[in-house]
Amino acid sequence: MTEIRAGLLLFTGMTQLDLTGPFEVLARLPGCRTDVVAKTLAPVRTDKGLVITPTTDFASAPQYNLFAVPGGPGTDDAVLDAETVAFVRRQGVGARWVFGICTGSLLLGAAGLLAAFGATVSDDRLTVDSNVFTSGGVTAGIDIAIRVAAEIAGEAAAQQIPLQIEYDPEPPFRAGTPFTAPKEIVQRALAATTERRRTREAAVRQAADALSERD
Amino acid sequence: MTEIRAGLLLFTGMTQLDLTGPFEVLARLPGCRTDVVAKTLAPVRTDKGLVITPTTDFASAPQYNLFAVPGGPGTDDAVLDAETVAFVRRQGVGARWVFGICTGSLLLGAAGLLAAFGATVSDDRLTVDSNVFTSGGVTAGIDIAIRVAAEIAGEAAAQQIPLQIEYDPEPPFRAGTPFTAPKEIVQRALAATTERRRTREAAVRQAADALSERD
Repeated sequence: MTEIRAGLLLFTGMTQLDLTGPFEVLARLPGCRTDVVAKTLAPVRTDKGLVITPTTDFASAPQYNLFAVPGGPGTDDAVLDAETVAFVRRQGVGARWVFGICTGSLLLGAAGLLAAFGATVSDDRLTVDSNVFTSGGVTAGIDIAIRVAAEIAGEAAAQQIPLQIEYDPEPPFRAGTPFTAPKEIVQRALAATTERRRTREAAVRQAADALSERD
Repeated sequence: MTEIRAGLLLFTGMTQLDLTGPFEVLARLPGCRTDVVAKTLAPVRTDKGLVITPTTDFASAPQYNLFAVPGGPGTDDAVLDAETVAFVRRQGVGARWVFGICTGSLLLGAAGLLAAFGATVSDDRLTVDSNVFTSGGVTAGIDIAIRVAAEIAGEAAAQQIPLQIEYDPEPPFRAGTPFTAPKEIVQRALAATTERRRTREAAVRQAADALSERD
C-alpha cells in the first residue's frame, strides 16, 4: 500500500468532533500519516472551547492524498477568508480523497470544488461524487472516515479500526436526524438557529460571489 | 436546573476521542460548563499525535459535579502517577457523576473508586453502579455522555444533543466488538496487542499494590 498523507483542516470556531472523529480513524490506518493543518501553528479554539494545536501550517503542508474539511459555526468566517479558501482549493484539486464534514462542505463549495458537479442537496448521511465525499454533521465524520479507510486499505485492514475504537454505537435516543427526532425537538432546534442560519446564508452568498468573480 | 461543572481529565498518551466525544456532548448540555483538566496548563500530546491544551490544571480545578476519565495507552503511566491518582480520587469521591471510558476505568480503580464495589468485568458497552459509569472504549464515551446528560437535564433537553451532533450512526462495518468483528480480525488485534497488554497488567498490579498500601 502506498503511504497516505492525510490533512485535516483546523480553523477557529469549527466543531472539534468533525475533526477528532475522523482523526481517530485515520490515525489508526496502517501507513497513514495524519496532519492537523491550520493557517499558523498557533493553538486554535474550537466552537465550544476545546483548544487544539496544529501539527503543521498552510505554508509547510505537503500536498495531501486525503484532505478533510470539518464544519461548525466558524465556517461562516472561513468561507470568507481568502487564504483558507485558496488552501482548500489547492489541496482539494490535488487530493485523491476529499471530505466535507457537516458545513465543511460549504468551504469545499466556496473553493469551487463542488461547483463542477452542480451540487445538489441530499438528506443522506454520506454522499460520494468522484473523489469528493460530503457527509452529515459531526459524528458522521467517523462513518465517512471508516468508509474511505476501506477504499484505501481494503476491508480487512479497515475493519480493525472499528474494533480498536469500539465503534458499536448504542445511541440512547434515536434523535440524530430531523426525521427521527421528536417533532418538538426539531422545532426547538430550528427556532434556536434561525439567526445563525441567516448569518450563514449571507456568508455563503458572499463566498459564492467571490468564487464567480474569480472564475 | 442547577449549573453543572464538568471536568474531563487530559493526560499524555490518552486516546483523544475518549475525551473529545464526551466533550462534544457535554458542551452542548444547557447549563453545563466543561473543563479539560490536566496536571499543568501545558499542551498535552495524545496517543496518536493530536495535541490538546487544557483549560485548567489540577491546582486550579474546582470540585466537579461530573468527572470523566478517558483511557488509552497513557493509562499505564497515569495509574502510577501519584499526583494524577490523588486528583482522580479527590474528584471521584466528590462528584455526582463519574465516568470511566475505556481503560480510564483502570485509573478509577487505581484511585480506589471501584474497589468499594468489588468491581467485576462486564462485556456491556455501558455499566452503571451508583454514581460511577464505566463504558467500553472510545466511541462508547459518546453514548455514556448522552445518557448522563439525560439524567442531568431530562430526556427532552438531552434529545437535542444527538440532533445537534447528528448522532445517527451508520457504521460501514459491524466490527466494533470482538463479538461482531470477523474472527480473523479479532485474532490479529489480539496478536498485535500482546505486549501492550502485558505492560498494562504490570502497571495495574503495581497501582493495585500502591492502593492497598495506602488503605
